Order: sequence, then structure tokens, then C-alpha cells
Amino acid sequence: MTASYLLSEIASQLGGRVMGDTGVRITQIATLETAQPDQLSFLTNSKYRAQLATTRAGAVILAEADADATELPRIITDNPYAYFAKASAMLNPLPEAKPGVHPSAVIGAGAKIDATASVAATAVIGEGASIGAFSVIGEGCCIGANVAIGSRARLYPRVVIYRGCVIGDNLIAHSGAVIGADGFGIAMDEGRWIKIPQIGRVVIGNDVEVGANTTIDRGALDDTVIEDGVKLDNQIQVAHNVRIGAHTAIAGCVGIAGSTTIGRYCRIGGSAGILGHLHIADHVEIAAFSLIGKSIREAGSYAAIFPFSKTDDWRKNAVHLRHLDDLVKRIKILEQELDSIKLKH
Amino acid sequence: MTASYLLSEIASQLGGRVMGDTGVRITQIATLETAQPDQLSFLTNSKYRAQLATTRAGAVILAEADADATELPRIITDNPYAYFAKASAMLNPLPEAKPGVHPSAVIGAGAKIDATASVAATAVIGEGASIGAFSVIGEGCCIGANVAIGSRARLYPRVVIYRGCVIGDNLIAHSGAVIGADGFGIAMDEGRWIKIPQIGRVVIGNDVEVGANTTIDRGALDDTVIEDGVKLDNQIQVAHNVRIGAHTAIAGCVGIAGSTTIGRYCRIGGSAGILGHLHIADHVEIAAFSLIGKSIREAGSYAAIFPFSKTDDWRKNAVHLRHLDDLVKRIKILEQELDSIKLKH
Amino acid sequence: MTASYLLSEIASQLGGRVMGDTGVRITQIATLETAQPDQLSFLTNSKYRAQLATTRAGAVILAEADADATELPRIITDNPYAYFAKASAMLNPLPEAKPGVHPSAVIGAGAKIDATASVAATAVIGEGASIGAFSVIGEGCCIGANVAIGSRARLYPRVVIYRGCVIGDNLIAHSGAVIGADGFGIAMDEGRWIKIPQIGRVVIGNDVEVGANTTIDRGALDDTVIEDGVKLDNQIQVAHNVRIGAHTAIAGCVGIAGSTTIGRYCRIGGSAGILGHLHIADHVEIAAFSLIGKSIREAGSYAAIFPFSKTDDWRKNAVHLRHLDDLVKRIKILEQELDSIKLKH
Repeated sequence: MTASYLLSEIASQLGGRVMGDTGVRITQIATLETAQPDQLSFLTNSKYRAQLATTRAGAVILAEADADATELPRIITDNPYAYFAKASAMLNPLPEAKPGVHPSAVIGAGAKIDATASVAATAVIGEGASIGAFSVIGEGCCIGANVAIGSRARLYPRVVIYRGCVIGDNLIAHSGAVIGADGFGIAMDEGRWIKIPQIGRVVIGNDVEVGANTTIDRGALDDTVIEDGVKLDNQIQVAHNVRIGAHTAIAGCVGIAGSTTIGRYCRIGGSAGILGHLHIADHVEIAAFSLIGKSIREAGSYAAIFPFSKTDDWRKNAVHLRHLDDLVKRIKILEQELDSIKLKH
Repeated sequence: MTASYLLSEIASQLGGRVMGDTGVRITQIATLETAQPDQLSFLTNSKYRAQLATTRAGAVILAEADADATELPRIITDNPYAYFAKASAMLNPLPEAKPGVHPSAVIGAGAKIDATASVAATAVIGEGASIGAFSVIGEGCCIGANVAIGSRARLYPRVVIYRGCVIGDNLIAHSGAVIGADGFGIAMDEGRWIKIPQIGRVVIGNDVEVGANTTIDRGALDDTVIEDGVKLDNQIQVAHNVRIGAHTAIAGCVGIAGSTTIGRYCRIGGSAGILGHLHIADHVEIAAFSLIGKSIREAGSYAAIFPFSKTDDWRKNAVHLRHLDDLVKRIKILEQELDSIKLKH
Repeated sequence: MTASYLLSEIASQLGGRVMGDTGVRITQIATLETAQPDQLSFLTNSKYRAQLATTRAGAVILAEADADATELPRIITDNPYAYFAKASAMLNPLPEAKPGVHPSAVIGAGAKIDATASVAATAVIGEGASIGAFSVIGEGCCIGANVAIGSRARLYPRVVIYRGCVIGDNLIAHSGAVIGADGFGIAMDEGRWIKIPQIGRVVIGNDVEVGANTTIDRGALDDTVIEDGVKLDNQIQVAHNVRIGAHTAIAGCVGIAGSTTIGRYCRIGGSAGILGHLHIADHVEIAAFSLIGKSIREAGSYAAIFPFSKTDDWRKNAVHLRHLDDLVKRIKILEQELDSIKLKH
């Protein structure tokens, strides 16, 4: 399934300055430790430069600062990590999907499926839905009525998109992702919860990736919005009426409560949480496992992690957290008493 | 898909006192900020009363205390939020599902599907299962052998219910929900884990909602029980032999460990956790992100959240948590020394 | 679906020393409190020995130390809990699956399905995949191209395994599990994220269990590896290039970040997290809800839990965590001042 290129062909497609033998044939990408003579490797951090001496790689991608750190055939570029990503994409094209609708798929009345799109076995496309050019709908996907999916989408098996949601171009959605389920809206009425109909949609921009088993709820009244270039890892929960700004990346298991707005270019660590109705500024970084309970107005890095220790030590220390306020009072008394003693001296 | 009603028709169906023009035609519900002249809005908190002056809504739902705060056509009710929920349900009926079994669905021997029920494309109903009146089984759902589902259930695409589980009336289950998978029961035997068969069921009462990708495990020996009116958001994990009391509402990403009993009318915040074999009283509120490690015998609100801060500040402060016990000892010594100094004065 | 055995038959198959009437017929396993005269119970902790006096069980499994604590027919064994697990497995065989491929399943070209294996309704098997002897592929499962699954696997409905993954014998995978989706690999390039192709696989050993809606991502360059006997509960996220050592057990909702290596025989509590690129030694226990942010080189028990309290108390105490460093400085000043006062005395 992999392709093969001369080093010169890679550079002519992706740019960068080639040094050394441009004719080496590259069949795969690999780390410096594991690369073989027909493989391209990369150095993204000068501190690992010593590995260049021992690598068996046929060629390497380097930053300008490391250009002379090896005699190996090499491509010099401003951003070796991004270059590696692009070269790997050249060498590892996704398996092609045959255009057309598998006979076991079920297509609703009025659905418009582009002739270049592919609908795999047992997928179900709802009435009035539209699937754009070159999009691939995987096995067992369920696309609700009147959903609009742009071009070049790749939905892996068993993605569900509820009725009426709107998806831009280039969506990647992994298995088990659920887009557009009802938000958690309930009202207490005489001892019973009443359901609040969730009449908004999920609207997703271009170039978004949604991880496996991630859920994005539809809006209660208005829409839930995922802007262009947002990247969501697995098992993330995005509640109703959340807005995630363009190019924000969120790691696995994060939960975002309802009506919160997250800025552009944010990075949120795994298992973090953000309470509802908050505003998070652009360029905010949130550490893994941290709960954000108030709006963040200023770009920067934020954290709230309880440091781990041996359980015996943890037990000894953590017990005091229930008495921290008393402790602070005891310190205050000490300070006052000491002051009064000092006065007497 | 939306309906349309005169204001008087809404009030005659849902109650409440109408003031002003009862003949305004309502086609949708909306917030005060976004409502149009053919839309009904609502005020659930007097502190936003100023918005009544600028809203373009055709009518509003108000509490008695706000009855005279506007000239707009209005419905006065004790509980505007619940009224809004009911009015929205009138205006936004769910898409109807055609009764009958889609030709691509697979029905096991002896399954009993009510003539008014709907089984969608590619759904699989196990042997001996029963589906009650007006229930809708979505695309790709897998209902295990001998599962009993009551009436008016709405299962969205790709819900799985394992064999033998019992479900009351009015279940709403969202895509990716898994009900009745094995609990996590293993026994160590000579260096290897042995599986403990999970022979209990999941038993779910009436009027329960289960969110997308939520999992409820079957019992090890006895059943896992979800009582009437329980509302579960997305990505919740309910372990084996848990019992959740009636009308308890649980937000997304919560984990509840095995054999814990949760009372009635509890509210549990997102990403909270409850350890196993605990008892949580009725009317307990648990804050988001809080781990409950002991039983709670008394109604009330409980929390355990590490407050977030800028990462630099967090680092400076959090390091001391590993030495809190030493710190307390130092304070004790200070107190003793100060006492002995005071004695000398 | 349950079997029935004489007590002597159970002992002759599973070992242990029988005392009392070996001819009692056993149809099920149950706790001491609920067991009936045709049921086998067990005592795994001597502290519950008093229940032996009142149980209605027909027979009990006991440790040597409790052998004389009852007159009931009994089996004496070193490990009553493991014995219970094995006896329950005898009494509760899984529903048998008919060998063969359901007519609604879709089988790719070149797929090799053992004649003793079972492929259920609406399952999809990719091109070149292989399914071993006596394996059961549940309804709606999607097995990618060239996946290899060993013998006696049991995949419950709607499991997805992406292309090229390799699975040993005796896998149990619960509904909604996703094995082999792309890891979360992205590189920033001129204001946009570029996807890093995930070209590794997931490689799973023998005797592994994967819980409902658990996700295990494929490797970026090398493989993600789950060794023999690993037991994963529901809703766990295993990121790319993680390695989990043999016989490690992980409770629900845990997140493990990329490239982390976990040792053998570890036990990880629910909702815990482990950051990326760490090494966790063998025989490490991690408490529920604890984030591990550094490698652990030494076996033992580790924790990081914020203790819960009433919300009012929590608020009073937690506020000081943002000033802990100041507090420590105040204590230091107190100590210095006290020292200087003591000098004067």
C-alpha cells in the first residue's frame, strides 16, 4: 500500500533544500533508531543529533541548524516535523475506496451522493442527505436525514451523524464518533425531569478531525459549532452549544460542558474539563487532568493537577487538605502572637 | 418538521394564564435575544428582565413575579423553564418513524415486535426479544436475545443491548450506548486473570434517557438497576451491580464503580467519579470532577476540585502538597515553642 | 442457558477437596445471602464467616482456614475466589454461536474465515482478513482489511478493528470497542495542523479482554502493543505506541497518553491518567482518579486524589491552594523570627 519515491521527487513536491545524493530511493519513513537504507528519517530536536552518527537511514530531514551534522543525503527545511508529516503522507496514501454505493448500503429517498463518493457496506444514508465529491462513508455509518457532508470526507466504520448536521470539507471521523446526539437538556417539573428538545444542529467547518468514540452534541436552541482545522482526539465529550475556535487541538477524554466558547489555537491536554458557559481566550493551553471552572481571558498556560506520590505519603499529606483553612488560621495566630512578643522586646 | 400553534392553543394544552393577544401564531421557540415575531421566548431568571424591552419575540413565558414586566403577549406559569420545555416539545415533534421492519433488518426467531413499532435499516433483533408499542429501533441497533423493551422507546442508531436485559417504557438511548456488556470481574489465579462470568442483567425503569456512548454493565451475580426517570448524559460508565435511584441526573463522562448505590434525585457533575461499594444518600449533589471515595449519608452538596491557576503559579504551589504533613508538623512545633516562650513572659 | 452439575462433578473438573454430601445438585452460583438450596456459594473473606450460619446455599466454596466453619457440603481450595470464577464458568456457558457466515454479513475478497468460526448478521469482514477457529464475530462488527484474529475470539456486536491489526487467541472485545484508529498525531505548519499518517498497527497478545467503548489507537510509526492477559475495562483510551505489559488490569475511563510503557501485573484504578512517554514499572498500583506525570521505577502503590468534603468546606479550604507557596514562606519567616527570639532568651 506504500508508494516509493526518489529523494529528489519528494523535495520537488514538498520543497526544501536537498544535500547529498538526491537519487536515493525512499519507500518508507522511520525513526533514526529503526530506519533502514531505503527509509527516510528526521531530526526534530538538535539534542538527539548524536543519533545521526549511528542511523542506518537512507536520508534524513533536518533543520538548517543541523544541515552539516551528517553526510547522509538530506533535506533541509524550516520545520522538519511538518516535513516529516507531509513526506509520510506521500509515502503512505490511504487505501483507495471505490466510488459508488455498496449493494448492502441503504440510501434514503432524495439523498444526493456524488458520483465520485464511496458508500461502504451496510452504511445507511438518510433521506435528503448529501455526500460530497470523493467522500468515503465507511461500513456501518449512519448518516441522518438532511445531513450535508462536504467533499473528501473520510468517515471510518460506524460513525453516526444525526439529522440536519452540516459538515465542511475534508472531515476525518473515526469509528464510534457520534455527531449531533441530543444535548443534555432537562427541566425539573413537579418531581420529574422533562426533556428539553434539542433543536440546534452541529455545524463543522473544513479540515476537522474527530477521534474514535468522541461525541459532539447538537445545540439546544442554537447550533454547536466546530470551526475550521479543529482536531479532536478520542473519547472527547463536547456538550450542546459549545463553540470551538479554529485550529484548536484537544487530547483524549476531555469534557466540555454546555455553551462554553473556546478560542482559536488552544491546546487542551488529556482528560481535562471545562465547565459550562465559560469563555476561553485564543492561544490558551490547558494541562492534562485540569478542570477549568472560570473563564480565561488571557492567553497562556493553565493547570490544576494534584501531584502523585506513594499512597502512604499521599494519605499522610492529603488528610490536611480538609483542614487547610484551620491551618491558615493557626499561622495567622502565630504571626499575631509573635508580633505581640516582638513588641515586648 | 416543526408544527405551528396559536398562543391560545399552547396555553389550552399546557395550562398557564395568557395575557395579551392570544391569537399570535407561534412556529418556534427561541431565546429572548434571537426570537422573531413568530417565535415564543421565555424568562427563567428575573435578572435578565431587561431583555424583555428589546426582544422581538411574538410572545413570552413568564413567572408570576414578572407578569407585568412587558406588554407582549405572554403566558404566566409557576415554572417557565419546564413550560418552555413542554412548549418546545409541542413545536418540535420528533421525526415520525414508519411502523414496520425495514427489509434490511434481521429479526431473530421468536422475537415479538409490536405492529406499531419501527425497526430501521440494518438493525438486528435477537431471538426471543420483544419490542413494545410505538418503539423505534434505529439503524444498526443490536438488540440481544430475550431483551424486553417497553413501549415508546426511541433508540438512535447503533445502540447495543446485550442479551436478557429488561427495559421499561419511554427509554431514549443515544447512538453508541452499550447496555448490558460484561462487568469488569476478574480473579487472579496463579499469575493469570480468570474471567468471572457476569450473569446478572441490566434492568432499566421507565422514562430513562441514556446518552451517546454511555455504557451500563450487566451485574456479576445480581442485576444492575437504573430506576425510573434517571437521566444519563454521554460517555458515562456505570459498572456492574450499581443501582441509580429514581430521578437522578448525571452529567457527561462520570464513572461509577461496581456495587455502588446512588440515591434518588441526586445530581452528579461532569467527569465526577464514585468508587465502588458506596452508598450515596438521596438529594446529594456532587460537583464536576470530584471523586467520592466514601459513602455519603446526608443530603447536600459535595466537592473535591483542585483550583486551576497559571501553570507557573500552579507549579510553585502544588509542589508543597507533597510536604503538607511536614508543614503541619512545623506549625505544631512553632505553636509549642511560642507557648513555651509565652510561659516565660 | 445454565448447566447443572453434582458437587462431585464440579470438584472432579476443577479440583479442591469435597467435604460433606458430594451428591448435591448445583444449578447456579450465588452470594451467601441470596443462594438457594440448588446453588453454590463461596466465602472469600473469613470476616464474613458468620453468614455461613444463615445461608440457604446447597454448598459452599471455602478456604482451608474455614473448612470447619460449616456443616454444609463444601469444596476446600486455596483460592475460593478463583474457584468461584471457574465454577461459574462451568455453570454459565456463553450462548453458543452457530458456525458459518450469516447471509447479511459482507465478506471481502480473500478473507479467510475458519469453518468453525461464526460471523453474525451485518458484520463486515475486510479483504484479506483472517478469523481463527471457533471465533465469534458479533453483529455489525467491522473487521478491516488484512486484520488477523486468532482462535476462540468473542467479539460482541459493533466492534471495529482497523486494517492490518493483529490479534492473538481468546480475545474478548465488547461492543463499541475501536481497535486501531489513528493515533492523535499532528504537526503545526504555518498556522494549520497537518496530519501525521499513523502507519503502525495495534498488536494484541492472547487472553486479552477489551471493554465496551474502549479505544486503542494504532501506532504512529511503530506498533501499539497489548501483551498477553491484559484486561481493559470500559471507556479506556490507549494512545498510539503505548505498550501495556502482560497481566495488567485497568479499570474504566482511564486515559494513557502516547508512547508510554506500562509494566506487567500493574493495576490501574478508574479514571486515572498516565501522561505520555513515561515508563511504569511492573507491579505498580495506581489509585483511581490519579494522574501519573512522571515515570515510576519502583513497584508499589501510588495516588493523587483530592479528598472530597461538603462544598462549603471545600470552598473554604481549596482557596488556599492558590497561596500555598506564600503560606510556606510565612511559616519560614515565623521559624526564623522565633529562632531569633529564642536566641535572645
